[in-house]
This record gives sequence, C-alpha cells and structure tokens, in this order.
Amino acid sequence: MRVALLSGGTGGARLASGLAALIPPEDLSIIANTGDDEEFWGLLVSPDVDAILYRLAGIFNDTTGFGVRDDTFHAQAMLGSLGEQTWFQLGDRDIGVHLLRASLLRGGMRLTEAVAHLTRGFGIEVGVIPMSDDPVRTRIGTDAGELSMQDWFVGQRCVPAVHKMRFAGIDTARPSPEAVAAVRGADAVIIGPSNPLLSVDPILAVLGDELDRERVTVVSPVVGGQSLKGPTVDMLRDMGEEATAFGVARHYAGIAATIVIDRVDANSLEAIHSLGMRTIVDDIVMDGVDGEKRLAASLLHVLESTDGS
Amino acid sequence: MRVALLSGGTGGARLASGLAALIPPEDLSIIANTGDDEEFWGLLVSPDVDAILYRLAGIFNDTTGFGVRDDTFHAQAMLGSLGEQTWFQLGDRDIGVHLLRASLLRGGMRLTEAVAHLTRGFGIEVGVIPMSDDPVRTRIGTDAGELSMQDWFVGQRCVPAVHKMRFAGIDTARPSPEAVAAVRGADAVIIGPSNPLLSVDPILAVLGDELDRERVTVVSPVVGGQSLKGPTVDMLRDMGEEATAFGVARHYAGIAATIVIDRVDANSLEAIHSLGMRTIVDDIVMDGVDGEKRLAASLLHVLESTDGS
Repeated sequence: MRVALLSGGTGGARLASGLAALIPPEDLSIIANTGDDEEFWGLLVSPDVDAILYRLAGIFNDTTGFGVRDDTFHAQAMLGSLGEQTWFQLGDRDIGVHLLRASLLRGGMRLTEAVAHLTRGFGIEVGVIPMSDDPVRTRIGTDAGELSMQDWFVGQRCVPAVHKMRFAGIDTARPSPEAVAAVRGADAVIIGPSNPLLSVDPILAVLGDELDRERVTVVSPVVGGQSLKGPTVDMLRDMGEEATAFGVARHYAGIAATIVIDRVDANSLEAIHSLGMRTIVDDIVMDGVDGEKRLAASLLHVLESTDGS
Repeated sequence: MRVALLSGGTGGARLASGLAALIPPEDLSIIANTGDDEEFWGLLVSPDVDAILYRLAGIFNDTTGFGVRDDTFHAQAMLGSLGEQTWFQLGDRDIGVHLLRASLLRGGMRLTEAVAHLTRGFGIEVGVIPMSDDPVRTRIGTDAGELSMQDWFVGQRCVPAVHKMRFAGIDTARPSPEAVAAVRGADAVIIGPSNPLLSVDPILAVLGDELDRERVTVVSPVVGGQSLKGPTVDMLRDMGEEATAFGVARHYAGIAATIVIDRVDANSLEAIHSLGMRTIVDDIVMDGVDGEKRLAASLLHVLESTDGS
C-alpha cells in the first residue's frame, strides 16, 4: 500500500518515523508544511521539513522540540554579541543544514530538489516533499498585531491570543509536482496529528484539490481535550473552533472520510459519524520510538484491511 | 599624525594591533586586501579583513593562524556529513560573522559599510576598510592549473609552484571611497609586513594611484631571507623575484620612498639606497602583543620625527 503523509512538525514527524520503519521507502512520501518557513540571515529555516528530516535521520532534539540533538549555539552567540536579535534558536549543526539548503536554492534548485538533496545526504530513503516550491508564509493576527509564525510561536511564546490567520502567498503558490504525484499515487493519504490550523491547513490550501476524500484519514492531534503537543487547543479555541476530537473531525469533515481518535474520546463517536465520517479508535499518544511504530502499525493494519473497500 | 595601514593577513593585522594601541582611533585607518575573499555556501569569507577584525577584537586564533580563538566546527562537520567539501575550515563563531556580513550585503550595503557594521559590533574604534567594494579575486596560476587563492593556499597547502598571478575583476574595480579618503588624508601610509604579491599588490592595483610615494613606508615581510609568515619567500622565488629585503625594496621602489628592514639585513642598506629608497633598520619580528606595540611605537617615532621633512 502506498501512503502519503501530510505532516506538520512534531506529531506528524513522529508518525512519519513510525511509518518509515514499516513501509518500503518507495511506498511512503512525507509532504511537509512550509508555511512556518522563515529566513534568518539569508538562511531558509523550514521547521516542519527539518523536524521530519532530523527525526528520520535519528538526530532530532526531543528535549527542546526543535533542531539537532546535542547542538551548540556558537554562531548564534557571535551574532548576538554583534547586536543581532537571536530569539530564534539556530544551532551550529542546524546552521550547517541551512547553509547547504540556502546555497542549493541560490544555485537554482527548487525547494523540493534542495530538500531531496538533504534527504539523500542524511541517508533517508523515504521521500520528504515540501508542499510547494513557492513561498507560503503563515501570518498570525493577534492582539499584538500580525506576526510571522515564528515570531508568534517562538518569539512571543504563543502568548498573544490569535484571532486571525492567513497564508501569505497562497493565491499564487502551486503545489510541488512531486507532492501532487505523491498524493495522486497514494492508496491512503494520512493527515498526521499536527495543529490543524497552523500545520495542516497550509498544506490543504495548496494541495487540497488533489485529495480524494475517501482515501484521506486524519489522526486527531487532540486527545481528551488536550493538545498532543504545542498550542493546538488554545489556538482552536481562540479561532472559535471546538478544541475536542469532535471539533477536529468537524474541521476536516470536508477533506477526510476517516478520523483516528483516542480511546478517551470514544464518547464522540456518534457525533463524528453524524458528520459523515468513519472513525478508528486507537491509542494515539506515541510513547517514544515504540509508540510511533505501534500507532503506525495499527493504522496501516486498519487502512490495509479497508483498502479498496 | 594620521596613519593609513595597508594590510594583508597575519603580519599586517599584527602591526594594525600595535598601531591601534598607540594612535587615537580617529587617526588610524586599516585598509585590507580583499583579493583573498571567497564565497562558501553564500557566505563571503574575507580572510584578511577578518584577520584584522579578530585581531583587533582580541579573539584571533593565533594557534591556527585564522578564524576565532577556541572556535568549534560543528556546522562544517554537518556540511561534511551531507557530502560537502570542507577543505576550508569555517568555525561556528566565524560563521556567525559571515552570516551577518552576507546578510548585510544582500540587504544592499556596500562591503565597506558591512565591514564598518561588524567593526562597530566588535567594539573596534579604528576604521577597518576593504580596499574596494567591487569583487577582486586573486587567481594563482600553478602547475596544477589556475586556482583560487584559498584553493591554492588552504586546499593545496601552497604546494603547487606559482608561475602566474592575476587579479580577476581588477579592470573594473574601483577603490572604496573610504579607502581613497583614508590614504589621501594620511600623513603616513604604512604597508604592513604582508606577502607583497598576494596581499599587498591587489591593494596597490586598486589604490596605488592615490598614494604619494614620499609618504609611503613599507615594512619588509622578509627577514634574513625568511618569510615572517606563510609562503612569501617561496612565492617571490617562484615568480622570479629576489626573496630578500633588497628584493622586497625593489618590488616596492616605485610606490614607497622608505622601507623598514630588520637589523639582520643591514648589509642590504647600500643596495636599497641605490634604488632611491630611504631605510629604517629595526627589529621587525613581532613577539606577541608587546612585540606588536614595540614595532608600532618605533615606527611611529621615526615617522613622526621625519614628518613634513
């Protein structure tokens, strides 16, 4: 079974890791959100792409939730001593990756090609595909004004309440050809347990028209009314959505035929079914590498058993 | 007395440090060779400018002869693991500096303005001025083909014999306005003890027309037939010049009225005088920071005593 995973940062990347351990690489594609990308000193930092690359390369920093494990911050300290703002933490090893990507892009590569080059460099066999080669930048409308995603998320620590979001550049952004091919060729498209508004909606905004709802399964990032990671629940509430598994289902009802919810949310089954969605009930919380594999295996088992039905 | 120092790498930078300890900052300008500049991953590495900045900031790595003291090489290790060539050693703190400069240049600053920004960032009060805002690149013709300066110097460790040198871009390069103002306003122009062919000739190629020979004093980089540092002697020989204090004098006879030679070369005095040059005999070898200051003080003493004469 060929699988395309639409992935934001942490949650999606962990499911990617679980799936990569089980599916032959040629049958798995990870399509990453690039709405969180931002340039620092000419380096294109692409947090969701890199969370996937570093996770699959086995070097993701789980302690901090970003960047490379055991990284140092000497380049950034120098920049700080020269008067630069350094609220966005760029480690030295991380900067090595960004230097190569920026250099490949300036040399004329499309973003997808540059990421493919990095993927090969890391010895990753699975395809990691940015959603678009065109810049899309998530802008967060808050009480403190409109901020870039990284400024709000890292610089302001998600404190200012969100009342509006827009994806700058979305009107002219096309999905990358590789991303289109991956979702068209997939027997199953899985939307990872990432922030729907922040991490998945940008992907859907460029790639949604290519999806066949019947083949799309979303894994809820909300379990028992709590975010698996990050500001998902607060953001859903701020934006007037219901911060529950049902709320997630309603958010995706038009795009996904199936939702995977946690056992603790089993009381939402009936309400979700009334949205015209099928449900898979599972343990969603991934505990370590074993947890990633367990959820991926469980998901593949169900999807394979219903494949073509 | 206002002084402009024309400086290559190590020797010039050390004399710059000695002069900076003695002259009010507004009366001292250091004009740096940029012929050795080279881009790596979009970073403009400017070894001679940086040798001066790091030396004046007190962070130059004397052990390796380049870069920042106690630097780490994690970004570069990452680049290497991704398949990139890493024969040119870029430390993490060094990369911080390069990131800022590259970013300022892409933002539209002239190189001179970007270097002035770095100079202020380091708290350096002396003006450090690139010889030109236009790219000049020293190309080394060798038995192994034509190489960039860094490829020959670092990549090939100066092994291939040099039979030709050219400064690509020199025909269209203009001296930076700040460099012109500095040499025009100087009571004394000092050419530091740097490699004449590699480090000083590029400066003279863009700025030579602005110099008043009577006010120019060169410090010999050759002492007793040996280079103070680096491949000066071998290179002079390879290029058919005499690798002695007299050879250096002859090289500069048209541009400088005075040469500072070491006591061990005092037997060359008569021959040098026959070139129409004055001589200052001193201990040229700078031993540590005290040695830098001692040579600078001695030099200033002589220049001040002959000022206007």
